[in-house]
Amino acid sequence: MEKKMQFNPELAEIKTYEGGKPIELVMREYGIKEEEIVKLASNENPNGVSPKVVEAVQNSAHKMFMYPDDAMVTLKSGLAKQFGVTQENLIIGAGSDEVINFAIRAKANPTQKVLTAGVTFAMYDIYAKQIAAPVIKTTSQQHDLAEFLALYKANPDIAVIFLCLPNNPLGESLSRAEVYEFIAQVDTETLVVVDGAYQEYASYKDSDYKIDPSDLIATFPNTLYLGTFSKAYGLGGMRVGYGIGAKEVIDTLYKVRPPFNVTTLSLVAATTALEDQAFVNEAVALNFSEMERYETFAKENKIDFIKSYTNFITLIFNENLNSKEVAQLLLKKGIIVRDLTSYGVNAIRITIGTPTQNSKFFETFTKVLTA
Amino acid sequence: MEKKMQFNPELAEIKTYEGGKPIELVMREYGIKEEEIVKLASNENPNGVSPKVVEAVQNSAHKMFMYPDDAMVTLKSGLAKQFGVTQENLIIGAGSDEVINFAIRAKANPTQKVLTAGVTFAMYDIYAKQIAAPVIKTTSQQHDLAEFLALYKANPDIAVIFLCLPNNPLGESLSRAEVYEFIAQVDTETLVVVDGAYQEYASYKDSDYKIDPSDLIATFPNTLYLGTFSKAYGLGGMRVGYGIGAKEVIDTLYKVRPPFNVTTLSLVAATTALEDQAFVNEAVALNFSEMERYETFAKENKIDFIKSYTNFITLIFNENLNSKEVAQLLLKKGIIVRDLTSYGVNAIRITIGTPTQNSKFFETFTKVLTA
Repeated sequence: MEKKMQFNPELAEIKTYEGGKPIELVMREYGIKEEEIVKLASNENPNGVSPKVVEAVQNSAHKMFMYPDDAMVTLKSGLAKQFGVTQENLIIGAGSDEVINFAIRAKANPTQKVLTAGVTFAMYDIYAKQIAAPVIKTTSQQHDLAEFLALYKANPDIAVIFLCLPNNPLGESLSRAEVYEFIAQVDTETLVVVDGAYQEYASYKDSDYKIDPSDLIATFPNTLYLGTFSKAYGLGGMRVGYGIGAKEVIDTLYKVRPPFNVTTLSLVAATTALEDQAFVNEAVALNFSEMERYETFAKENKIDFIKSYTNFITLIFNENLNSKEVAQLLLKKGIIVRDLTSYGVNAIRITIGTPTQNSKFFETFTKVLTA
Repeated sequence: MEKKMQFNPELAEIKTYEGGKPIELVMREYGIKEEEIVKLASNENPNGVSPKVVEAVQNSAHKMFMYPDDAMVTLKSGLAKQFGVTQENLIIGAGSDEVINFAIRAKANPTQKVLTAGVTFAMYDIYAKQIAAPVIKTTSQQHDLAEFLALYKANPDIAVIFLCLPNNPLGESLSRAEVYEFIAQVDTETLVVVDGAYQEYASYKDSDYKIDPSDLIATFPNTLYLGTFSKAYGLGGMRVGYGIGAKEVIDTLYKVRPPFNVTTLSLVAATTALEDQAFVNEAVALNFSEMERYETFAKENKIDFIKSYTNFITLIFNENLNSKEVAQLLLKKGIIVRDLTSYGVNAIRITIGTPTQNSKFFETFTKVLTA
C-alpha cells in the first residue's frame, strides 16, 4: 500500500490478546513429549468431558452441515429448568465471554464507564477498550465492595459494574449477603453483571457464597448473571455460556448478538452436559480435595496463597521469587501454569489438575524452588 | 424495574435477526413428520457432511474440555496452502459473518459509511446498524458496478464497500475483469470486501468469474476476501469462515476478534474438510446439474429467475403471485424455502437440494401454482 490504511482510532491502543501456550507449542519449543506435558493454565476440567456428552456429540456429527437452531430451544429449556427462570430470561453466548461483550456493547460507550476489581477477568477490559469505553478499577486487587461503592458514588457516569464471583485470576469470592447489600445501593439504571463462571465451585465450598440467578434477577432487575459450560461442565473447547436477566435486558442484548453464534455440536454438548450433573458434582468434589494438597504444599513452602472458591489456586510470591521466571522454569520442565505478571501481580495461577498432575506439579515446583 | 433501563441509543432501531424456520418448528406447527420435510432455505450442502470430517470429529470428541488452539495453526496452514498466501494473511471467524463484523467494526463508524448492492447479504446492514454506521445501497438490486462507482465518487465518506460475489440472496455474480476494473478506481484508503462465500460454485460455473484471493490482495492491498466452510464444504453448523488480506488489514481485524472464537471441534472439522476436495467437487457438480432442472421448470411455468452462480436459485414472481403467500403454502406442505419479501423483492430463494428433494419441490410447487 502506498500509504497506511487508516482504521478506527480506538483500535490503535488495543494489543492483540495472547492466550496461554498450547501444548503443541511447548512440545516444539522445548522438545518435550506430549504425554510428559501437564497443562494447568486454562482452568479446564481435569476430568475431561462427560462420556455421555462425547457419545451425544459423536451421534450428532452427521448434522454438522445444518445451521444451528438459532432459537436454541432445547438448551434454553434445560437452562430454564435448571435455574427456575423462563426462556425469555436467557441468552446463549459463544462462551460467557460473548455475553460480556454483548453487555458492554449494549450499555457502555466512550462516556458511559465500566467499573471492575483491580485484578479480574481480562475480557472486561478488552471488550471495553474495543468500543473506547473507559474502565475504572478499584485500587484493591481483590473485590472490595466498600471501594466499589465509593468509586461508584464518585463517578456518576459508571453504567456497568462487573463482579467476578468467584474472581478469576485470584480466586476469592463474596457471600450472597455482601453482594445483595452492595447491589441494593446501586441505582437501578446501572447494570450490575455478576460473572458466575466458577459459581459451581463456590456454591459447593460454601453455600453462603452461592448466588442464585433466579433470586438475583427477581430481587434486582438491573442485574445480569453469567454462567459457562467451560469449567465444571468440561466444555472449554465448545464455547457455550449464558446470561440470565430480566426480559428487557435480555431483549436488548439480543440486538447485538450475531445469529448462529453457537455451533450445532456445541448446543448438543451443552444440553447433554446439563443433564449429567453427576459428572459436574464429581469434578467439583475432586477439585476441593486436591485443593487441600495445594494449600498444605504452599504452607510447607511458606508461600502465600489466596483462599480459592474456584478450580485454580493463586500463589503469591514475595521478593525472593519472580513469577515470570518461575513460570518459565516450570514450562521448560513441561508444566504450564499462568504467570500473572501482566495483571500487575507477582503470582502464578495453577489449575487444580488430576491427582497425578498435581503430584507432578509439587515435585517439579520443589525442584524449581531448590534449584 | 421502576423505570426502563436506558441502553445505547443506536440499539433502539435494531430489529432482532430471525433466521429461517427450523425443521422442529415446522413439525410442531403443521404436524408434519420430520422425514416428510424438505428444507431448501439455508443454502446448506444437500450432500451433508464429508464422511472423513464426521470421522475426524468423532475421534476428537474427547478433546471438547480443552480450549481451542487460539493461534489456529493447523487450519491456517491448510488455508495458506490452499490459497497460496501466508498465515499472516489469514484470520478465522465464527463463520465469514464474524469477519464481516470485524471489518465493519475496524473501519466503519457513524461518519464512515458502508456501500452495498440494493439487495444483498443481510449481515452487512445488521453489523453496520449495531455501530450506527450508515449504509448506502445502490438502487439496482443486483450488483451494478457503474452505480457503485457513481455513489462512491459522490460520497467521500464511504469507508467500506461490500461486493457479494456471487450475491446472496439473488445469485448473480461478476467477472474477475469487471471486479478488478472497479477496484482499480477505488481509493486505496477504502476497504473493499469481496465476499466469496459462494465462490466455489461461481468458479466452477465460469472460470472467468473466479476471484483468486492471493492475486486479489497482491493486486489491491486494500481488499479483504471472505470465504466460508458453511456452503460447499458442508459445515454450516460449525461456524467457520475466513478473511484473507494484507498483513496490516488482518492485524487490525485481530484487534476486534474475541479470543477462542472457533470451537475445538470446528477447527478439526474445517481442517479435515479442506483436505477432502473430492467431496466439494462432487457437491458443486451435482448442484449445477440439478440447477438445470430448476431452470427448465421455471421456463416451463413462465416464471422469471436470476442466472445463479451459487447453490440456490431465486424465482422472481410477477403480480399474479405473492412470494410470502407462496412460501407459506409450500411450508404447509413441508417445503421450507426463503421468502424475500423482507428484502423488498417479490421472490423466493430455493436452495438446490438432492435430486429427490428437488423433485418433491417441483411436484409441490406445481400443486401450489394450480391450486
